[in-house]
Amino acid sequence: MREVSVIGVGETQFGELWDKSFRELGIEAGLRAIQDAEIAAENVDAIYVGNMSAGKFIDQEHVAALVADYAGLADQHLPTIRVEGGGACGAIAIQQAAMAIASGVHDIVVVGGAEKMTDVGDVEAARILSSTTDQEWESVFGATFAGLFAMMARRHMFEYGTTREQLAAVAVKNHKHGALNPVAQFQKEITVEMVLGAPRVAEPLGVFDCAPLSDGAAALVLCSRDKARKFTDTPIDLIGTGQASDFLAVHDRRELTTMDATVIAGKRAFHAARKTPNDVKVAEVHDNFTISEIMAIEDLRFVPKGKGGFATEDGETALNARVSVNTSGGLKARGYPVGATGVAQAVEIVRQLRGEAGKRQVTDAGLGLTHTLGGTGGTAVVHLFARGD
Amino acid sequence: MREVSVIGVGETQFGELWDKSFRELGIEAGLRAIQDAEIAAENVDAIYVGNMSAGKFIDQEHVAALVADYAGLADQHLPTIRVEGGGACGAIAIQQAAMAIASGVHDIVVVGGAEKMTDVGDVEAARILSSTTDQEWESVFGATFAGLFAMMARRHMFEYGTTREQLAAVAVKNHKHGALNPVAQFQKEITVEMVLGAPRVAEPLGVFDCAPLSDGAAALVLCSRDKARKFTDTPIDLIGTGQASDFLAVHDRRELTTMDATVIAGKRAFHAARKTPNDVKVAEVHDNFTISEIMAIEDLRFVPKGKGGFATEDGETALNARVSVNTSGGLKARGYPVGATGVAQAVEIVRQLRGEAGKRQVTDAGLGLTHTLGGTGGTAVVHLFARGD
Repeated sequence: MREVSVIGVGETQFGELWDKSFRELGIEAGLRAIQDAEIAAENVDAIYVGNMSAGKFIDQEHVAALVADYAGLADQHLPTIRVEGGGACGAIAIQQAAMAIASGVHDIVVVGGAEKMTDVGDVEAARILSSTTDQEWESVFGATFAGLFAMMARRHMFEYGTTREQLAAVAVKNHKHGALNPVAQFQKEITVEMVLGAPRVAEPLGVFDCAPLSDGAAALVLCSRDKARKFTDTPIDLIGTGQASDFLAVHDRRELTTMDATVIAGKRAFHAARKTPNDVKVAEVHDNFTISEIMAIEDLRFVPKGKGGFATEDGETALNARVSVNTSGGLKARGYPVGATGVAQAVEIVRQLRGEAGKRQVTDAGLGLTHTLGGTGGTAVVHLFARGD
Repeated sequence: MREVSVIGVGETQFGELWDKSFRELGIEAGLRAIQDAEIAAENVDAIYVGNMSAGKFIDQEHVAALVADYAGLADQHLPTIRVEGGGACGAIAIQQAAMAIASGVHDIVVVGGAEKMTDVGDVEAARILSSTTDQEWESVFGATFAGLFAMMARRHMFEYGTTREQLAAVAVKNHKHGALNPVAQFQKEITVEMVLGAPRVAEPLGVFDCAPLSDGAAALVLCSRDKARKFTDTPIDLIGTGQASDFLAVHDRRELTTMDATVIAGKRAFHAARKTPNDVKVAEVHDNFTISEIMAIEDLRFVPKGKGGFATEDGETALNARVSVNTSGGLKARGYPVGATGVAQAVEIVRQLRGEAGKRQVTDAGLGLTHTLGGTGGTAVVHLFARGD
């Protein structure tokens, strides 16, 4: 099996981008990644696009071919593949593209992730997000996406003594990181008091415990590792990936406070890479809600189960602490255009491993991790990236 | 690169299945394929699902994990991947699953395709189908899916002298084949007069020129070729695949009467398989409209450009003629649950190559082809299957 490296990255501004369409965002990110890789369009063998719900957000399916078309590549008649798995679609797209290279079918693949969410109203957007839960057993009975995560938070507080202040500490940290990221949707610091005093969304979660609705796109250029040095002096290797599914409905799961999909995806990725959680210096994890980051750092084994809130409050996951978590600002502050997320996380990790992360640079970042969720944990994907030798 | 074989096939009844949900259809097809392959659930390494618009048809995204869950496989925490590319999603899912096996990551993969279209009204369903065209430049100006294909038909008639009767001959043939297929949505023969006299949908296309709205699912079990003989005495090898994209909007294309995506996907598949169109004895092609089959058999080089209508009228594509096209009844008579289509086509070809096609069996079928379109031709996928040695 051929190994795979990242040779180019690109992303758009994240935010409420009312003057840009879905296709414009996808192309902007893709072309930046191609320019960053210093390849020609003719070098591209295929295009993968992670996207959750363009069908519902902008009434457009078939978006991978659309992006290739509007990028000016229709004449190359490239294979174009859209991949979906709830919020994990960008991360799954990376994995599928890597397999295509590993199989020997392609040498260079562009992987994009994009979502345009703000063209519909907030209520409609929340309803669309709920379509990644089990509609027949959750949403139709009134369970909202935030409500399901709020239940996990309540149970985590009950079982492990996690506090509201600890949940708030996740948002405060990620806003602090976001303030150092010029493409972040929110580049403003917040305080624990602001988080606690914010309007409630679903008890105990308030507005500042929730990632925003966002527009944005990100892209990577993947290349077979044996050819990567032809294009760049700083290839970043994808050294392990793991994906796992679980029961879609939260009530069917083994427990509320552990995401088995994350635990197993993490084990698979670490096993493939022959690394351990202790080796990871920088990680982008799926903080669609503050409780999600706490569960993620536990389920990925960065901290013992039940200690995620305490570790965050103690600053163990801050920039240049034991493990720097969500240096981009995370979904919370960088923004959460769903389909873009897994790819945007990888872009941040590649920048960190290259040493190009500016004011938010992690010192001696040698191994980086991305963790992306689909739905309320029905899917999880973990990727491990390392500096090329 | 490891080669790939089909070791199991399964499908549901196709039709207006108001007593079955999307997840039930997906599971029924998948379990039949697993039973056909005589493997245990524990042998399955991953699940790929081709689906176009569950988000819009049944308000449910994240359907690959959903199907794994309701198939009783959640405890295995399998990687689950939904793939979309307009109507070609099932065919793309096959290709992605084959690459995953070729890369060495997986040995046995279940590929399903499913769509549940009849839970929304006919007008809404037609609107959803249009979301695979270029929404910003076609649909918003009133171009319907049928209208765009009607323009191709008109131009084909003008350029090549194709007649209404020749278009009708496609529907008559496919209904004749469908009458021999116990899972077909329509198992009733029709006449040229019935086609010509039917209510118009978009001139020159009438009701009988259009594939129906359908519910249904189909599934394959793919296995690395070196292990296939452990499970079956009649493995069917996937010997070549090709995928190509094109401009999404019909008005941007080089011409109206040739689908470049089909031409190039076909060339890529034949090149990979080291075969020619003359070697193909049985083919399932994308006849979402009668004109589509005529263009497909031309663009796949079964007949010279412009001769598709004449060849069909002369019976050259009937059961056990020179090349047997759409022996299942095609999208027209077997039915067109969009996401299921590419997989259902492969199921039919596998049955033909195994010699299990009953009354519609093609004599000495050694090489079979599937051709699947996304949108109005923005994507095309061609697969070639052969009997294992």
